[in-house]
Amino acid sequence: MFSKETYISRRAELKRRVGSGLILFLGNDEVGMNYAANIYPFRQDSSFLYYFGLAYAGLNAIIDIDNDSEIIFGDELSIDDIVWTGTQPTLKEKASMVGIEKTRPYGDITLYLDNARKKGQKIHYLPTYRGQNQVKLQNYLGIYPGTEQPSVDLIRAIVDMRKCKTAEEIAEIEKACNVTADMHIEAIRATRPGIYEYEVVARLEAVAAAHGCRLSFPTIATIHGETLHNEDHFNLIKEDSMLLVDAGAETPMGYAGDMSSTICAGKRFSPQQKEIYDIQVAAHQAAVAALRPGVPFTEVYNLASGVIFDSLKALGITKGDTAEAVAAGAHAMFFQCGLGHMMGLDVHDMENLGEVYVGYDGKPKSTQFGRKSLRLGRPLEEGFVLTIEPGVYFIPELIDMWKAEKRFADFINYDELEKWRHFGGIRNEEDYLITADGARRLGKKIPLTTEEVEALR
Amino acid sequence: MFSKETYISRRAELKRRVGSGLILFLGNDEVGMNYAANIYPFRQDSSFLYYFGLAYAGLNAIIDIDNDSEIIFGDELSIDDIVWTGTQPTLKEKASMVGIEKTRPYGDITLYLDNARKKGQKIHYLPTYRGQNQVKLQNYLGIYPGTEQPSVDLIRAIVDMRKCKTAEEIAEIEKACNVTADMHIEAIRATRPGIYEYEVVARLEAVAAAHGCRLSFPTIATIHGETLHNEDHFNLIKEDSMLLVDAGAETPMGYAGDMSSTICAGKRFSPQQKEIYDIQVAAHQAAVAALRPGVPFTEVYNLASGVIFDSLKALGITKGDTAEAVAAGAHAMFFQCGLGHMMGLDVHDMENLGEVYVGYDGKPKSTQFGRKSLRLGRPLEEGFVLTIEPGVYFIPELIDMWKAEKRFADFINYDELEKWRHFGGIRNEEDYLITADGARRLGKKIPLTTEEVEALR
Repeated sequence: MFSKETYISRRAELKRRVGSGLILFLGNDEVGMNYAANIYPFRQDSSFLYYFGLAYAGLNAIIDIDNDSEIIFGDELSIDDIVWTGTQPTLKEKASMVGIEKTRPYGDITLYLDNARKKGQKIHYLPTYRGQNQVKLQNYLGIYPGTEQPSVDLIRAIVDMRKCKTAEEIAEIEKACNVTADMHIEAIRATRPGIYEYEVVARLEAVAAAHGCRLSFPTIATIHGETLHNEDHFNLIKEDSMLLVDAGAETPMGYAGDMSSTICAGKRFSPQQKEIYDIQVAAHQAAVAALRPGVPFTEVYNLASGVIFDSLKALGITKGDTAEAVAAGAHAMFFQCGLGHMMGLDVHDMENLGEVYVGYDGKPKSTQFGRKSLRLGRPLEEGFVLTIEPGVYFIPELIDMWKAEKRFADFINYDELEKWRHFGGIRNEEDYLITADGARRLGKKIPLTTEEVEALR
Repeated sequence: MFSKETYISRRAELKRRVGSGLILFLGNDEVGMNYAANIYPFRQDSSFLYYFGLAYAGLNAIIDIDNDSEIIFGDELSIDDIVWTGTQPTLKEKASMVGIEKTRPYGDITLYLDNARKKGQKIHYLPTYRGQNQVKLQNYLGIYPGTEQPSVDLIRAIVDMRKCKTAEEIAEIEKACNVTADMHIEAIRATRPGIYEYEVVARLEAVAAAHGCRLSFPTIATIHGETLHNEDHFNLIKEDSMLLVDAGAETPMGYAGDMSSTICAGKRFSPQQKEIYDIQVAAHQAAVAALRPGVPFTEVYNLASGVIFDSLKALGITKGDTAEAVAAGAHAMFFQCGLGHMMGLDVHDMENLGEVYVGYDGKPKSTQFGRKSLRLGRPLEEGFVLTIEPGVYFIPELIDMWKAEKRFADFINYDELEKWRHFGGIRNEEDYLITADGARRLGKKIPLTTEEVEALR
């Protein structure tokens, strides 16, 4: 973790921003895979990590602004615990590492919150994403699961603090990015015809593990690149396959990297594959060149979408005015996902706080197919860390649906498009820090162009 | 999955055993790590897998015995789902694969259960181990989280069916065991002084992944073998370290393997290490030789505990009558965990159904320290699959506690024991099938003795 001063100053700043009331931070608990004791790797909640730094299960915390008090609730280990899991610092010692003096037994939180409610204190809490924390909210505050009303004041305060990364955070993210880059370089070297996707996954995930890192999200490694989040890896890689890999490392402190590569199974891409690949690279490079503080990310998205739509005209697939097509959403036939997202303690940073607050500063978000998947739209600021990941995808089910509806028939030549229906999909992804006058790539470079990929084969 | 006939006949047998009422099977859902969409690898509930075979999130099922009806509740994919996750079989197709004709939308289950309750049908359900299924039980049946009353009739019927493995299950378990053995052989080859525990973990887990398997439980790989379930891997391996590895593979169908090795970091074990290692091997071999139908596993546990206690006398650590010492629990200073557990669709098979029903046929279990961690005590039956995993551990905190209390001073020479307080711990583990007249090891052999480990170094 960082020094205690980091956590002390973050909490002080949060208190200042929220102003009054009591902030309840629910830590995460262990989750059983198939029974209670067979647990998934523990992952602390990211806002809990940001303000309290402690990656242990069985903790909750309160910042009682009205009474100027910070308390961590948890239990000490029993001798049975020690036999099974070894010694740990005591709760007092853990709390002290992040600058907190007051600790209380886990069960005391109910009484503390009961008293706060009796005194009419406003209780701020964040949205939940796990059933176990819904159960806690019900036990502590009587909130029926599904009827939670998270505090918008708290969400906005946290987003405003977490959105710009400090130097010590950037150093940690860059560690994750360097391991992530090594995972992709290993994947490019490991891919070959005749093996299964999972064999490449084994190789690239072992790189993260060998650095003491975990995965920042479930690895995508698929010869069906057009399936945006395919998490099965049981396909055989063939001579003419392209393997799309989207994978990243998470450091022990919880910071993420997130990159994508599209790899030819054979030694070289086919001419057809190169044509689409180059379009994706052009969109990628245009997007990166546009990054600087003040630019709304929606504009960068429009720019990249325009490059893709425009470039496909040369192949006869698209037609008409590019700006009109992108405004109408016709580009989303080929580019259904967003261009990128914030990254930090979460690979989609702060996604649990609500995309509108994180990516749009509370302003409404488009509902247009494709554009609605853009998680980041707000003007960029120095200290933002984000991904750039345009892609070009040919999704048979989508082609069939739009074609049947004659949707965007003025912009899409469906007869030409049919010739590409089994092409698949291509995405490359890098991570960038917004600097005072532009952007800086985080982590070592991974192959972006077909030539760079082929050079490693 | 197995053929649909397997699932059809399992459900028919379950209906016959439970007799009347309605059985509610809650499938597992995705669990967010740090936000809802960043999910842990999906793991279906094992009883759901056993009767319905479908490893998909977002399903629940009902076997309505009174109305002779079997229904799977779930929703079809939207075009947005298909864009992100690719096509899947329809719900009808999935249900049909396991011999079920009736499917209904996910949300219909509430109405179905409301009607059943109005008609006074008994509703059987299993214990929960995830918050999200507690929330479901509250939504469906009005049961406040923590006040669930699982059906003992259902638990007993399921345990009676799942405890003895069929030939097709044994074949699947043996696949998991073979991959598990390869993981251990790789770990033995990878271990060396000067690297970190997580570097060995990376190598052994990659073996599981390269076979398209997952882990059946979080890997233990620690130079502190005395810490029974240490799941951090950040220690540096030193020349005189022993690395205790407890790890296993889970096949795509969900069947587990589970083995342990204790590996010398250098080329050879020290004479002191060999002394304790040999004791553990003797206990292991005695336990394996005792396996056959009809023998209560508590007796096998007593036997192995006795070998450990008895053998430590030669080192001056223990004294007095071995049978008395084991009956009193003095052996648990060195052997705190159980001797083994059932294994199948769960690595601790059916642990979520309750250890007393699974391991003790509903009879009371010892509360004695050490013995209470024995998950299996009942007489063995042909078709049981179980682990054999005695260990010898020196736990400084336990030594200090018992010594201060003068506990078992007639059986333990604390002055001699003090000389071993930093020794660590040793465990080796294999998987066995109980046959008509004994037991058969499952999966290829891994090194068990110091000589066998050293031969791979």
